[in-house]
Amino acid sequence: MTDDAVDLDEKFSHFTEHWSPKLVARINDYDVKIVKVEGDFVWHSHEDTDELFLVLDGELTIQLRDRDITLRPGQLYVVPRGVEHCPRADSEVRALLLEPAGVVNTGDAGGDLTAVVESI
Amino acid sequence: MTDDAVDLDEKFSHFTEHWSPKLVARINDYDVKIVKVEGDFVWHSHEDTDELFLVLDGELTIQLRDRDITLRPGQLYVVPRGVEHCPRADSEVRALLLEPAGVVNTGDAGGDLTAVVESI
Repeated sequence: MTDDAVDLDEKFSHFTEHWSPKLVARINDYDVKIVKVEGDFVWHSHEDTDELFLVLDGELTIQLRDRDITLRPGQLYVVPRGVEHCPRADSEVRALLLEPAGVVNTGDAGGDLTAVVESI
Repeated sequence: MTDDAVDLDEKFSHFTEHWSPKLVARINDYDVKIVKVEGDFVWHSHEDTDELFLVLDGELTIQLRDRDITLRPGQLYVVPRGVEHCPRADSEVRALLLEPAGVVNTGDAGGDLTAVVESI
């Protein structure tokens, strides 16, 4: 990790793929990641941790089993640990994610969308 | 903490004071706080934790002993644990802070700017 200011727009310029979070900073043992998403993810949960989504651009729907949480730029939501969720975006969304280091994006679901997190 | 979306602009509308972080969300044992700052804070450090600053509006200078880190909207910096720093803003800045629950804003310095963090 660089010991310098991190410009999120500059970091977003380095990749185009969706559903593949990139590590941009670390605070203690937590990862600060950014991600571009579009379309539907997979239903999953994280048994051991909450997960924070902060939308920077676009509109993100975090589908829960009993309701939808809709996030626009400047809005955040913390998915509680153990709660099944499935993010969805009709057009591209840029978001910041926060969770402990080592959390797998697809949680208990696994599958093709499981990403290896690279530092950028 | 509400189990719903958090709109940061709406939260900022609830207070005017400077250097008094407000709790808007919690992720595991970490606090997500927002703060309005203007002027000079105090030199201090946090011996046990890193501290993340994400600027949402305005320009924030985080003075370190050997250099300044300047942050504009969409830019973040993680002050490493134990590193002395003194935030400064010539005009009002809105920022998001992240650190473990219970961290005191003035760290080892204490003094009049020490704030009790309220949830809003």
